[in-house]
Amino acid sequence: MPMIHTFGVIGGDERMRYLADSIAADGYPVCTAGLEKLAPCRKAVPASMEELAKRSSVIVLPLPASRDGKTINAPYSEQEIAADDAFVRLLRNKIVYGGMIGKLVSTSDIWQEIGPEDYYRREALAVANAIPTAEGAIGVAVREYPGTVNGAKCLVTGFGRIGKNLAMLLKSMGADVSAAARKQEDRMTMRAMGVRPLSFREITQRYDLIFNTVPAQVIGPPVLNRQDTETWVIELASAPGGVDRMCAERCGVHVVDAPSLPGLVAPKTAAEYIKEAIYAMLEE
Amino acid sequence: MPMIHTFGVIGGDERMRYLADSIAADGYPVCTAGLEKLAPCRKAVPASMEELAKRSSVIVLPLPASRDGKTINAPYSEQEIAADDAFVRLLRNKIVYGGMIGKLVSTSDIWQEIGPEDYYRREALAVANAIPTAEGAIGVAVREYPGTVNGAKCLVTGFGRIGKNLAMLLKSMGADVSAAARKQEDRMTMRAMGVRPLSFREITQRYDLIFNTVPAQVIGPPVLNRQDTETWVIELASAPGGVDRMCAERCGVHVVDAPSLPGLVAPKTAAEYIKEAIYAMLEE
Amino acid sequence: MPMIHTFGVIGGDERMRYLADSIAADGYPVCTAGLEKLAPCRKAVPASMEELAKRSSVIVLPLPASRDGKTINAPYSEQEIAADDAFVRLLRNKIVYGGMIGKLVSTSDIWQEIGPEDYYRREALAVANAIPTAEGAIGVAVREYPGTVNGAKCLVTGFGRIGKNLAMLLKSMGADVSAAARKQEDRMTMRAMGVRPLSFREITQRYDLIFNTVPAQVIGPPVLNRQDTETWVIELASAPGGVDRMCAERCGVHVVDAPSLPGLVAPKTAAEYIKEAIYAMLEE
Amino acid sequence: MPMIHTFGVIGGDERMRYLADSIAADGYPVCTAGLEKLAPCRKAVPASMEELAKRSSVIVLPLPASRDGKTINAPYSEQEIAADDAFVRLLRNKIVYGGMIGKLVSTSDIWQEIGPEDYYRREALAVANAIPTAEGAIGVAVREYPGTVNGAKCLVTGFGRIGKNLAMLLKSMGADVSAAARKQEDRMTMRAMGVRPLSFREITQRYDLIFNTVPAQVIGPPVLNRQDTETWVIELASAPGGVDRMCAERCGVHVVDAPSLPGLVAPKTAAEYIKEAIYAMLEE
Repeated sequence: MPMIHTFGVIGGDERMRYLADSIAADGYPVCTAGLEKLAPCRKAVPASMEELAKRSSVIVLPLPASRDGKTINAPYSEQEIAADDAFVRLLRNKIVYGGMIGKLVSTSDIWQEIGPEDYYRREALAVANAIPTAEGAIGVAVREYPGTVNGAKCLVTGFGRIGKNLAMLLKSMGADVSAAARKQEDRMTMRAMGVRPLSFREITQRYDLIFNTVPAQVIGPPVLNRQDTETWVIELASAPGGVDRMCAERCGVHVVDAPSLPGLVAPKTAAEYIKEAIYAMLEE
Repeated sequence: MPMIHTFGVIGGDERMRYLADSIAADGYPVCTAGLEKLAPCRKAVPASMEELAKRSSVIVLPLPASRDGKTINAPYSEQEIAADDAFVRLLRNKIVYGGMIGKLVSTSDIWQEIGPEDYYRREALAVANAIPTAEGAIGVAVREYPGTVNGAKCLVTGFGRIGKNLAMLLKSMGADVSAAARKQEDRMTMRAMGVRPLSFREITQRYDLIFNTVPAQVIGPPVLNRQDTETWVIELASAPGGVDRMCAERCGVHVVDAPSLPGLVAPKTAAEYIKEAIYAMLEE
Repeated sequence: MPMIHTFGVIGGDERMRYLADSIAADGYPVCTAGLEKLAPCRKAVPASMEELAKRSSVIVLPLPASRDGKTINAPYSEQEIAADDAFVRLLRNKIVYGGMIGKLVSTSDIWQEIGPEDYYRREALAVANAIPTAEGAIGVAVREYPGTVNGAKCLVTGFGRIGKNLAMLLKSMGADVSAAARKQEDRMTMRAMGVRPLSFREITQRYDLIFNTVPAQVIGPPVLNRQDTETWVIELASAPGGVDRMCAERCGVHVVDAPSLPGLVAPKTAAEYIKEAIYAMLEE
Repeated sequence: MPMIHTFGVIGGDERMRYLADSIAADGYPVCTAGLEKLAPCRKAVPASMEELAKRSSVIVLPLPASRDGKTINAPYSEQEIAADDAFVRLLRNKIVYGGMIGKLVSTSDIWQEIGPEDYYRREALAVANAIPTAEGAIGVAVREYPGTVNGAKCLVTGFGRIGKNLAMLLKSMGADVSAAARKQEDRMTMRAMGVRPLSFREITQRYDLIFNTVPAQVIGPPVLNRQDTETWVIELASAPGGVDRMCAERCGVHVVDAPSLPGLVAPKTAAEYIKEAIYAMLEE
């Protein structure tokens, strides 16, 4: 990446603040807008939107870029940032990156011309985000569950990136770990890791801790009816998640929502991952 | 253990509630006193102190048994429980167990006659308590430190039971782990675990996370001067701990106090450990 | 799988003997042929080829099914088993499974009619075989390398199923582990595991142990020139492997060939994996 | 350690050759005697016994120093090295270190005057040697047992340094690990590691692999009667070990002797450990 880029970071949360500073620490000029209510950056400098647009060749929007299809996601901005034509016009002829940009691009027709790219669709970023997610899930279990993870009977539903990392951590903490997945090859990977492999049909026991990573209702009555008031379910999938809430309540099972962990438990590292994704995209 | 024991559990926190219920679940009659402000037990039954004394052959006091050398440690009791002669007389001719009973036995001369035993001095309990302490420390690190433990440069000072467990967990989370200990054989154990062994003199680098387990000031200026505002120190040793607080503040290092983790993060499991210690003492 | 199958197991090595016995232990009638020089099976019964064909509805051929494109791979048979038209005709109207059947099907046109299926192409079997391969590689390293794996500087080239398992084992033995892969997401997975991620270009250091899993020459002069006479390379890829042999010799680097580990170090477990693949294929 | 020492290394096996070279690589002059049949050292130089004695201030004898109470343990010497008065006189006024020197000191009264020290009694060396012993045990299991360690039902008897390391390795390979020990606190450590804790009385199941580390007969009829012809016992304790051999044979259980693993599987690392012990002793 030749040293010609200048960056403008707009909106978002702690992650964007760390991101701006981390890019600046690599030697690039970085402006920020819409982060006023957070602690100031060390090296990146705040700017008005116009100034930022004038100075930057690369614009980085937050994750998600827009929540409502109208404004930029900027909870720490002193004022709302409308993602209207006037705003988008400022970004013309720039390289624009954003996370989960589905709702963003519906805010103005001009986006089509700009062609923003979605860093959140990078495979490497998804792999990376599974790390803080698994750590965060452990943190939630330690805090919420009144026993130790050590010796606890744990079930992980789903065995994608998050499920794999999480099962590995639980195992190394001395938990008794089972995992459920549809694919036979995933169940073989479980075996290699010393995790008890189950298909979803085979979930017939009581657990102390259940971690769900599947965004489809895999924890319904057949599973919940076997649990009790000393079972904790930690929901890692985004809403509506994988747990039948009404049934869980009826069974007295505790359900703890733990979505979006990377930004919450490790904004600094999550920012590094985004930076790496952006650098890789710039190189391509 | 022949089925002749009846238990009276007095004072303490969540742990004592779980303890009472767990002993009751094993089939023994259990009375409780001084836990009124907590959720009621499932199987153990509340009683007045006199009734409890009348019914119980074994009395279990909390951990610590007394904080002030005057009353029983009973923060969830509706009224203070004075550990005076009148109280102690009730326990005559009973088997009495308590945790850290140093201050307790100074409350009345009658204790000498009773000869209460300290379950907290059991080696197996100390080994056991290192499990929730290490888990709790991980929980604190996940919550407080803005990066992931994965990839973090970590130092564990002290390599007793807690240090060993903690280093093992950090290692399996993918941290870069060093540990410092005085004894050469401890440093050999570190090597076996793939942990970088250091003597205290050899702590000359910057770390992201420092976990102290030593109850003596091992983290003073020589160590702290090498840290910065992105270093987090997690203090696991009981007060005054091992960190030079004034120096830490001057260096901008974050210090998080995390004492007494077993009762906080895993009261249910901590209660099981105490139960096992008591059963083992009854068998001896 | 309804209880109507009868199995005929032909040729191969120890694995086929274990396989025949394991299927028989599940309650199915099993005949064997071409295993005469091995210890007799416990439950499966030897038979002539004609008898076996008459009695069996499912025929299992070894892995590989044929090495030479003329005979069945049967090193422990008292006589060669020609895979000629006469032989193949015996298998008509049967369900035939074999491993790596490329050369087999060229032995007779009648195969086309039978349509043998290749259990070796099952994803779950490949995942499974990575387990004994990684264990076997550890066994070779322990035996051949004059130091301990603990503390050794190790490089794993390639990060498919075998590379992942192997890196995990080396890590848990306290080695200092780096791995090299082309894909950025694989390098992210390495990070999650606490393994130092490298691209192939970035291999610029000296290692004690190098494990190659890539069937293409990734360990050529640029890597080998940095090694010395105390470096051991363990070649896990099938011939011609990934090591420039002439260059290795010139550099004094030790190269140990370790192909086909599952059948060598864990024939019993390897047989279980094949059995599971066959049962899954019968169910489909 | 001021740079005044000169070393003489006498007898022993590959370890002593590596030891001599490793000390020489640190910059000290090193002579060797009694290693003629091994590959020559790189930096240490062979010498006659007289020459060696003349040149050396520190003498290092092998491990064990003498097997027969008559000669120095020197299987790779071209001629026997009698440990008689003439020999011992050569070592007068020198610092002499040897391993397991019990039989050595009985060869001559002059030893008393010299006061040789036993490096094998160093706690740190014992801790260190548990590393290659555990690795070697894994190597033996991989080679001998026809299944994978992954998924195998394993029992470790004894939970000293070797037992702990071994249980940890087995666990991380995905075995199902139980361990037996007398002390309750050891069983608590097992729990912390996720290993199933047993007292010796509680060994009532069948195992695939049993590793004995106890030098007393803990694997007698009550244990062996529950095993079968598919059970492998790996004996790590020195003769007569912990297994009732006659009973094992009657039960068809396989017993594999695996004593003295450090020198066999990792002579180079074992030499480093001895060197560190010697340097530490010189510093004291």
